[in-house]
Amino acid sequence: MMTLEEKFRALETENAPGQEVRQEVGDLNAVMRGERYEGIPVDFSHGDVDAFPPTPGSFEAWQDGFERGGQQAYTEYRGSARIREGLVERLGAFTGRPISAGTELIITPGTQGALFLALGATVASGTKVAVVEPDYFANRKLVKFFGGEIVSIPLHYQGAPSENGPDLDRIETAFKSGTGVFVFSTPNNPTGLVYSPGAISTISALAAAHGVTLIVDQLYSRLLYSGEVYTHLRAGDTLPENLITIMGPSKTESLSGFRLGVAFGTAGLIDRMERLQAIVSLRAAGYNQAALDTWFLEPSGWMEQRVREHEAIRDELLGIFRAADLPTATPQAGSYLFPQLPPLAVDPHTFVRLLRHQAGVTVTPGAEFGPGSHDSIRLNFSQDHAAAAAAVKRVVSMVEVYRT
Amino acid sequence: MMTLEEKFRALETENAPGQEVRQEVGDLNAVMRGERYEGIPVDFSHGDVDAFPPTPGSFEAWQDGFERGGQQAYTEYRGSARIREGLVERLGAFTGRPISAGTELIITPGTQGALFLALGATVASGTKVAVVEPDYFANRKLVKFFGGEIVSIPLHYQGAPSENGPDLDRIETAFKSGTGVFVFSTPNNPTGLVYSPGAISTISALAAAHGVTLIVDQLYSRLLYSGEVYTHLRAGDTLPENLITIMGPSKTESLSGFRLGVAFGTAGLIDRMERLQAIVSLRAAGYNQAALDTWFLEPSGWMEQRVREHEAIRDELLGIFRAADLPTATPQAGSYLFPQLPPLAVDPHTFVRLLRHQAGVTVTPGAEFGPGSHDSIRLNFSQDHAAAAAAVKRVVSMVEVYRT
Repeated sequence: MMTLEEKFRALETENAPGQEVRQEVGDLNAVMRGERYEGIPVDFSHGDVDAFPPTPGSFEAWQDGFERGGQQAYTEYRGSARIREGLVERLGAFTGRPISAGTELIITPGTQGALFLALGATVASGTKVAVVEPDYFANRKLVKFFGGEIVSIPLHYQGAPSENGPDLDRIETAFKSGTGVFVFSTPNNPTGLVYSPGAISTISALAAAHGVTLIVDQLYSRLLYSGEVYTHLRAGDTLPENLITIMGPSKTESLSGFRLGVAFGTAGLIDRMERLQAIVSLRAAGYNQAALDTWFLEPSGWMEQRVREHEAIRDELLGIFRAADLPTATPQAGSYLFPQLPPLAVDPHTFVRLLRHQAGVTVTPGAEFGPGSHDSIRLNFSQDHAAAAAAVKRVVSMVEVYRT
Repeated sequence: MMTLEEKFRALETENAPGQEVRQEVGDLNAVMRGERYEGIPVDFSHGDVDAFPPTPGSFEAWQDGFERGGQQAYTEYRGSARIREGLVERLGAFTGRPISAGTELIITPGTQGALFLALGATVASGTKVAVVEPDYFANRKLVKFFGGEIVSIPLHYQGAPSENGPDLDRIETAFKSGTGVFVFSTPNNPTGLVYSPGAISTISALAAAHGVTLIVDQLYSRLLYSGEVYTHLRAGDTLPENLITIMGPSKTESLSGFRLGVAFGTAGLIDRMERLQAIVSLRAAGYNQAALDTWFLEPSGWMEQRVREHEAIRDELLGIFRAADLPTATPQAGSYLFPQLPPLAVDPHTFVRLLRHQAGVTVTPGAEFGPGSHDSIRLNFSQDHAAAAAAVKRVVSMVEVYRT
């Protein structure tokens, strides 16, 4: 049993995205080589909603919600019934299987909220939880917070497309050895890898065979690049008894400031998640829920253009990193790049702080995503195209300056 | 160690305020006596923000936040630094002791969010937590969820003002016997009792002497009726090392649809709460935080009028309950009435469901607030005055119909 002290040490947020402003500059000047760089500062720790603004109509939808007054302020804990009814139509069509508005969907404060509730509903002290490495940094923290035991599943992402993917043998071994829950993101955060149809059907069949609960984070599944295929696990033939799919409009749709997410799947788990939400924050902010009325109803061509613009940024940044010999996987979806750095004269965390201090570039240290990727950095390239390209050139230059 | 099944049974929300819409009518018709009542339905489970609308300017403040874009969408997890700097001035003045914007305050998704984080930061498996009975229903659930052990502290609220208050002897005994945390609301929810200066200073001194963490929920402290005095614990001379005060604009100010709250106090605990918020929902919704710019800056006279209007409703409803011989304490602050019902021909939960089904009146069963008050019901009287008075007359009539 962890003490509270240990529990909260595991929740350290000093290097978490968005918290950099709380860091002290300290003695960075003592290790800094050369001068500061000129250039527009870019914060790659999250997307820039000024460069890619919120979905058209989201402001008006919020205003409609505010004007509806009490009925929108005080929804059921799982969210407004009217809004859920609209969502299940669109999400059911997108993910390839119908959803019941009454029992199988909950609106949450962001996909972070959905992950918290899903793991809180399934992980107790001693529960073995399979977690992919690298994967979204909060997954590991959540498992520790609820007292679970992490079973690591390696993700291969730096090879040829046919060799990439989660280690299915390790998954099978884990499922056969008492793993209760498997949580993973596809597209993977931070690498942008999309799980193949074969990987998805194998995972689903293994979970069904061994009674493992699956929690699938599909946050980035709409930002899919040309030529790529996305497989929705819940559309498959063989499903486990307990399956939760998580999505939200914070990324591609730039609605992060509204804190909205959804989880849908097994009714018994959605019911638990609602009970937990009741003591966590009651509900996703009532008026904000109304912005979900714009979700999957964007103007014609809007989503296609957004994907195209991200693809252009992706391709340019990939070119810069690769020209400098920094191995970087091609994201198939989403807006993250996860380049690997060579050995440097300073430790990775110091280098990340130097990037911010000296070059005006904020990135997230790879160690946040798993112990094996401490020599990588994550960039969310949903940014102004030109500013992002210039900033990545500064990163590459900094790597040369500090290379051993 | 509780199993997940047991843990979530303890989080049952079927009778929680706002969830009534999920109940099945079932066989209520079989026990119903007489006909349905005519009259405007009133939902006393929460305040009516159509009758008492949000603070003037809150919509415009939200719009300003939305237009600020990325910097407002992605605040630090503890909330926007600019907004915190304004808040600490006003909250420090209101509560009688300065607050550091950098280290001693966190913005949360509602006061529910603040309570969740505060208890999550202080309660582990086996922690003894003193909880008042009756008190806000989530307190007990939160302690159980985090694996704590409830130590009950009776609240006397049905006697003469001089005799009312928490049982200080029981508090002292609890503090001397290993209690680690004491959580309570003043004004008390559901009774509206305001802890006296003597009770507050005794609690504070005892907590300091015995190293007990205090979590003080002051959500309703601004809605104080004529002739009453409010004592801010944190303004006292002898304070415990660990003290968190919780407030929010959801009630008196009707901003519940924004899901905003604050917790302020001991820096080490605020730091833990931020770490926990990082995995729960990242932050209170960014744009919504901007509505806090209106808090404690309401137009001149606005708050006074709001208090006056609530006092008038309070007095009329108290008169109706007392004329029917239903013992009801006079709330000194806040907008809850907690009348006690006589023995009835149906059990209290069935009566509450009949009230909704037959008389169009939604109330919260007293058992939600502690095992000792199953024969009371809670009404949030922040409602349209005339509709509330008519609805309470229907309640009184229903009591006569079902009285044994």
